[in-house]
Amino acid sequence: MHHNAAFRCFAGCPGRYLLTQPIYRCPTCGGLLDVAHDLDALRTRTPDAWKRLFEDRYRRGPWPLGSGVWGKREWVAPGIPDDAIVSTDEGGTSLLRADRYARSIGLDELWIKQCGASHTGSFKDLGMTVLVSVVHHAVRQGLRVRAVACASTGDTSAALAAYGAAAGLPVAVLLPRGKVSTAQLVQPIASGAIVLALDTDFDGCMAIVQRLAADGVVYLANSMNALRIEGQKTVAIEIAQQLGWTVPDWVVLPSGNLGNAYALYAGFRMLKDLGLTTRIPRLAVAQAERAAPLYRAWTTGQREVRPITAGDTLASAIRIGNPVSAPRAIKALDEMDGVVEEATEAELCDAAARADRTGLYTCPHTAVALAALEKLERRGVVRRGDRVVVISTASALKFTEFKVQYHERTLPEIESTWANPPITLPPDYDRVLDALERHAAAMT
Amino acid sequence: MHHNAAFRCFAGCPGRYLLTQPIYRCPTCGGLLDVAHDLDALRTRTPDAWKRLFEDRYRRGPWPLGSGVWGKREWVAPGIPDDAIVSTDEGGTSLLRADRYARSIGLDELWIKQCGASHTGSFKDLGMTVLVSVVHHAVRQGLRVRAVACASTGDTSAALAAYGAAAGLPVAVLLPRGKVSTAQLVQPIASGAIVLALDTDFDGCMAIVQRLAADGVVYLANSMNALRIEGQKTVAIEIAQQLGWTVPDWVVLPSGNLGNAYALYAGFRMLKDLGLTTRIPRLAVAQAERAAPLYRAWTTGQREVRPITAGDTLASAIRIGNPVSAPRAIKALDEMDGVVEEATEAELCDAAARADRTGLYTCPHTAVALAALEKLERRGVVRRGDRVVVISTASALKFTEFKVQYHERTLPEIESTWANPPITLPPDYDRVLDALERHAAAMT
Repeated sequence: MHHNAAFRCFAGCPGRYLLTQPIYRCPTCGGLLDVAHDLDALRTRTPDAWKRLFEDRYRRGPWPLGSGVWGKREWVAPGIPDDAIVSTDEGGTSLLRADRYARSIGLDELWIKQCGASHTGSFKDLGMTVLVSVVHHAVRQGLRVRAVACASTGDTSAALAAYGAAAGLPVAVLLPRGKVSTAQLVQPIASGAIVLALDTDFDGCMAIVQRLAADGVVYLANSMNALRIEGQKTVAIEIAQQLGWTVPDWVVLPSGNLGNAYALYAGFRMLKDLGLTTRIPRLAVAQAERAAPLYRAWTTGQREVRPITAGDTLASAIRIGNPVSAPRAIKALDEMDGVVEEATEAELCDAAARADRTGLYTCPHTAVALAALEKLERRGVVRRGDRVVVISTASALKFTEFKVQYHERTLPEIESTWANPPITLPPDYDRVLDALERHAAAMT
Repeated sequence: MHHNAAFRCFAGCPGRYLLTQPIYRCPTCGGLLDVAHDLDALRTRTPDAWKRLFEDRYRRGPWPLGSGVWGKREWVAPGIPDDAIVSTDEGGTSLLRADRYARSIGLDELWIKQCGASHTGSFKDLGMTVLVSVVHHAVRQGLRVRAVACASTGDTSAALAAYGAAAGLPVAVLLPRGKVSTAQLVQPIASGAIVLALDTDFDGCMAIVQRLAADGVVYLANSMNALRIEGQKTVAIEIAQQLGWTVPDWVVLPSGNLGNAYALYAGFRMLKDLGLTTRIPRLAVAQAERAAPLYRAWTTGQREVRPITAGDTLASAIRIGNPVSAPRAIKALDEMDGVVEEATEAELCDAAARADRTGLYTCPHTAVALAALEKLERRGVVRRGDRVVVISTASALKFTEFKVQYHERTLPEIESTWANPPITLPPDYDRVLDALERHAAAMT
């Protein structure tokens, strides 16, 4: 059985392009691309046979098929040979049942998909393993680029640099000088990426990197790239697999550039189209109030997302005013009977702190999703008996400063209602005993 | 089939004690305890049936049996009912094949077991889920304690606080005042633990927490606790499972308190005793040169580890001069034809930087293991064709400062040979192109 996939225009222009081509937009309309799979070929394997195949490989291999992404290779990027795959054994992250938090917000069954407990600490690994593997394969077949490049300050550059390093492919990260600290960049720096700090703003960096890509000097690993969606869609497949090949009632997702919203749809759609599941869950996209262009569009019935200037938010990775994948997200919301909700800075801080007290340790973006979920529950959109999965997009270990400031009550304009500062005491047995008793009473 | 396990004296004194008893030392000799399993009862299931059972549950469930620890519940802590288990879906971490790094140090096959890509970012989750679940069960059966307590500054308090929070059990962390920053403590603080900063030193804190435990006020979650070893030993079982029920030639492990060395032995021993594997791998324990009491003892043929005053090391979690589990580690080394190696600060920094350039992102402790492995390879102890697994004990996202200082060349007495600082440039296409070309040339 031979499986094929190719780029095609998201808006429907004719034409198919090899996945190994350095192509980022539809040559006809300039719009987004999509990866089209040959579903008829995939249907020659029965749903049960797919389930067995995926389960046989899952977290087990043989290498690199134990990866949550490459274990689904036929659905993701068929045609990439084993020895071209650049993997960190990504995917297969925990789906943890958050009972105490669920009860505290009036839900019976809430699961957190921990995409941040991964190699570079965010869900970006899932897409980047596909992109870098495809480039690796293309380079072996003769594609000549001097680097794989991006203009990101955050999780994207961390993931790209790590996968590039694992493959031995040069990676370039272009950034405005003085805007980003070593700490923010330490992952790509440690991975040996060439980090170029340019005396210009972010748009100036983008202009240069896009010209480099147009000239074929670099391969562009930007968030428009449809290959990354193919990796990210395995989150949907994995959730279904972890729930015994069923889907939840709701998936709640924090989103800025909106590619991940479409990736979820693509995964659940494929599961249903190929008969592994019988329905598609509802989607709730959560945005930070200060960077909520999709929320504004969707709640006012507009079919187009108008760019805004995103304000400063603690949920820095979703601080995006002009989301690249907006048309994809609209499609996902249409098909998944979706809703969009937003959360203020105060709401996200409060949700994070309360969730942490139930044993979670949430990054600000995941906190936006939790805060949005609480609002949806209060409005009766999400109901007590619904089975809900929240996508946690990054490790909170990347956000120590956020947690410290909250608990030291130094976040501007934030109340820190749930701050839990250390208690200073003399080394006296009875004083310690007394403190424990008061604390135990306060907790119950 | 009914499975039993009980505490018994590690040194062989008579007596068995329920796992739910708050007991930390042998009442006869004051020494370490061990958990004894009923191997005859476990043998009533065939090796193949165990493999099938473990695989059916692995990363899949039903909850909480998708956990890498609780999927092996019969071998870990039988008798804990499902609804007493406190899980974050721990275990099941990536086993990633580090080809580029392996080749750079003259090995053919090297795997990294990523125990740090976990809920609280270290391997401590594995032991803590068992300890907290047992306490949770005991409390439901009538045990009365005001808190579960420890005197740790690091990964132990983070894991204890998160699991305590997930269970709704109060957690207390006792620390010397002024010695530890909010950033170091932010995980237990966020989890709502009562953090007591006492005007005394570390020994003063330990004295108080031990008295509280002796009086039954708190349950002591210290590293002596044999329950934690039961959870940690699942790393060995998981490695074998991920390698298709075979064992590697070597397992390399950074260790300070040495409980994890014994846990590996306990896991591999049980696999062999119950017929799932046919041999036990060799063990290499790696210590930081400034905190290497086991190295000193083992390399001079002593059977007892003499306490030392540990010096300051970047590998802060294994900065231990008087390892609690030393007798356990000696047993593991005996049975696993083990070796002990040490690494200097310069060696660990260098190994971390070179490993990172191959796409790994290593914490200082994992770097100690990598540096030790390199020395063992150079000495011919570990050979090119050996299959080697290195245990990565924590997420490097907890060590941003270490990485930043290395790449900013500000680590005292460290050369930073592989530092990779950003390059500042004007926003000029040709200058950027030129920088990319020089970098690409330097990388090849």
